[in-house]
Amino acid sequence: MKSSTRRLRTGLLAGALVFAVTGPMLAETASKDGKANEFKVTDFLLENGMEVVVIPDHRAPIVTHMVWYKIGSADEPPGKSGIAHFFEHLMFKATSNHAAGEFDRAVSDIGGSNNAFTSYDYTAFHETVAPSALELMMSFEADRMRNLILTDDVIKTERDVILEERRSRIDNSPEAVLDEEVDATLWQNQPYRIPVIGWMQEMEQLNRTDAVAFYDKYYRPNNAVLIVAGDVEPNAVKAMAEKTYGKVARGPDLPPRIRPVEPEQNTRRTVTLSDARVSVPNFSTQWVVPSYHTGKPGEAEALDLLAEILGGGNRSRLYQELVVKQGIASNAGAYFQGTMLDDTNFTVYGAPRGDAKLADVEAAVDAEVVRIARDGVTDNELEKAKDRYVRSMIFARDKQDSMANIYGAELATGGTVQDIEQWPDRVRKVTADEVKAAAAKYLVLARSTTGYLLPQQQAGN
Amino acid sequence: MKSSTRRLRTGLLAGALVFAVTGPMLAETASKDGKANEFKVTDFLLENGMEVVVIPDHRAPIVTHMVWYKIGSADEPPGKSGIAHFFEHLMFKATSNHAAGEFDRAVSDIGGSNNAFTSYDYTAFHETVAPSALELMMSFEADRMRNLILTDDVIKTERDVILEERRSRIDNSPEAVLDEEVDATLWQNQPYRIPVIGWMQEMEQLNRTDAVAFYDKYYRPNNAVLIVAGDVEPNAVKAMAEKTYGKVARGPDLPPRIRPVEPEQNTRRTVTLSDARVSVPNFSTQWVVPSYHTGKPGEAEALDLLAEILGGGNRSRLYQELVVKQGIASNAGAYFQGTMLDDTNFTVYGAPRGDAKLADVEAAVDAEVVRIARDGVTDNELEKAKDRYVRSMIFARDKQDSMANIYGAELATGGTVQDIEQWPDRVRKVTADEVKAAAAKYLVLARSTTGYLLPQQQAGN
Repeated sequence: MKSSTRRLRTGLLAGALVFAVTGPMLAETASKDGKANEFKVTDFLLENGMEVVVIPDHRAPIVTHMVWYKIGSADEPPGKSGIAHFFEHLMFKATSNHAAGEFDRAVSDIGGSNNAFTSYDYTAFHETVAPSALELMMSFEADRMRNLILTDDVIKTERDVILEERRSRIDNSPEAVLDEEVDATLWQNQPYRIPVIGWMQEMEQLNRTDAVAFYDKYYRPNNAVLIVAGDVEPNAVKAMAEKTYGKVARGPDLPPRIRPVEPEQNTRRTVTLSDARVSVPNFSTQWVVPSYHTGKPGEAEALDLLAEILGGGNRSRLYQELVVKQGIASNAGAYFQGTMLDDTNFTVYGAPRGDAKLADVEAAVDAEVVRIARDGVTDNELEKAKDRYVRSMIFARDKQDSMANIYGAELATGGTVQDIEQWPDRVRKVTADEVKAAAAKYLVLARSTTGYLLPQQQAGN
Repeated sequence: MKSSTRRLRTGLLAGALVFAVTGPMLAETASKDGKANEFKVTDFLLENGMEVVVIPDHRAPIVTHMVWYKIGSADEPPGKSGIAHFFEHLMFKATSNHAAGEFDRAVSDIGGSNNAFTSYDYTAFHETVAPSALELMMSFEADRMRNLILTDDVIKTERDVILEERRSRIDNSPEAVLDEEVDATLWQNQPYRIPVIGWMQEMEQLNRTDAVAFYDKYYRPNNAVLIVAGDVEPNAVKAMAEKTYGKVARGPDLPPRIRPVEPEQNTRRTVTLSDARVSVPNFSTQWVVPSYHTGKPGEAEALDLLAEILGGGNRSRLYQELVVKQGIASNAGAYFQGTMLDDTNFTVYGAPRGDAKLADVEAAVDAEVVRIARDGVTDNELEKAKDRYVRSMIFARDKQDSMANIYGAELATGGTVQDIEQWPDRVRKVTADEVKAAAAKYLVLARSTTGYLLPQQQAGN
């Protein structure tokens, strides 16, 4: 349940599909059977500054086409929360060349699928189609990059849609409401404190002037990354990209994405929501930690392994101790959201089972946190965690859209193809001491933020 | 102790003096003995848009001269926290006409005093001198409004001063550190979440480019209010003001001060700091409430009276119940910061005495909050509270600098002279039902934010 909330939070969707990526995962570069080129990723720049990545995958006649804009909710102007996600919706409206819905129909007529999502750090649009339709996708996508018709009427209609989306997805969900206020309590300065979907009172005020300014500033080829994964050749992709995206004029250079940074946390914070709709209580405790983009070399890799050992699935310490051994929790775990442009969060969570009390579950989770920060991890645990991580990349290779997503997220947050390709080696190099140091440095209960979701009868506790 | 922290927070000072104003207090307009003109406040605009208020006070040959700029920490650009307060310091540096320190020396040479302070909503500079020196003060003050010399060297030197000020005033004080994080937990969107002095990591980055842009935007006659209180005649003040401030060119019009607004709070939040330097624990619980500028008619007046009845001094319910009757608290009270441009906070607080536990004090305070929200106040309590408030205005009339401060704060946050003059009547009109309604609407424990300051041994509680 916690994980589905996280998914909602990392990627708000106009439709249904979202990719949840924790840490950059990928195929190891040259595979041992000599088919080095089969997975060779190509990347290049168009003359207008648009970055292109081609990920070959010739197993089936399918291609995943994605455009990632380096604009997310954390880049929004003050008081305009929700505008990045609003644009995800507006991009499906009429352009000067195509009526609203025409792009969608073109995709479904050829049996393809399409969608879009918005996160703190980027907004992405994607289609999965037969390779013969790739150029058509590019031409539609290049068109809406610059030719949207943003009338007051379009704004008003689609604003009603996002307001309703907020009501149904957030305001109707005690867990989502709690998550929002936990985020805004954990983050006191950095813009991840603001929900991707926006604050209601600000969404209501979004207007055409805001939208046009936002579109003109950010929807430009030099602020976009094109990812094409599938049964295609790089040269053919390049030719098509030049013919379509290459025709779009470069926009003004954007300033570096330097955002307000979080001050040091000195306190223990809690946020409690009691609601009649909650049947089983749960809690989650979060810490501000570095991401792959803000950490010192090896630090985020160590945090990824720490999350894996402490609470990454059924083999983890938290699951084994609380769910299997003590039997007090229905669920318990940890995760680290490493692929963020700025500092990110490390989270532990748990929910009681049967007659167990939430306080007992929290105490048991805290005890494991204290233990791992004090005593570290064993070499055996560390090796197994590394194996699971590296294997996860090999599995990722098996899913075309996962691969596209990994590259897109990395490049849209300032990383490179090389960063992804070297990641397995960097994970392999992490030592047990480094994992222990990360735990000791960051997982301090006196400087943490805990959210409690309680049934109504526990209100006032 | 709590109150001194509040003072620090509402007005950060380059020097020592700060005015703590809770609610607009003032002299009733026409006094009954016929001396209507003796207290008649005059206000007018200079041609360049500078507002001028003259408050006559002929009891002694003294004049208080203040310039209020409608720029506070809550107006700062994202990532530039502390720049408003930084300017309070920079304004004492050299101009193209006067060396650094020359203004200060001119004031002390004539036996006057001067200072400055910064708040969320304004920055003010003031001198108290003999009336004969008023024009000199105006000429110095008009000079530094536009003629500061902002070199890299000046920036660097003064930035070191504000960094040291932050270290000594905030980082060395567990209570100040806690207050900062409570504010940033209470306010999740509105800029009052950012400390007036700034976040250390952002203060360190403030540079000449930031400073020049800020100065050119905000230090303009059409963004300033001049308050002159004392032994002066309005016409003479006007002539002097035209001769000095009147020579300063009007700046570009500024957009309305529309800031991000706070979303609805749905949770109960706590922030806990345990520190070895704390001997007696304390707590404070805060709620987001309307201010005089954001409330419906009469709402802020009702909140002022609610704060007075619940916890305004030794006659209040909290003091009588916890300190006098139960004897469990060394201190307990409530306050409301009504004179803010945006929504503000209503606070209750307490500290245990002797063997009493903090939790007992908090429970007793909460019980009084619940009782006043459920049962309201008596007519007798309300009348006495109104009397105390109206009397406080009469006392305020007795202090020249209080009067200047009341008018300055009101006008710098968009209010008018009339708002101040009608305030006693508006307070008189508040009914017991309105006070009860305000308590019931806003003082809900499930949607509150509590800060706990604990001795070290209680850490982990």
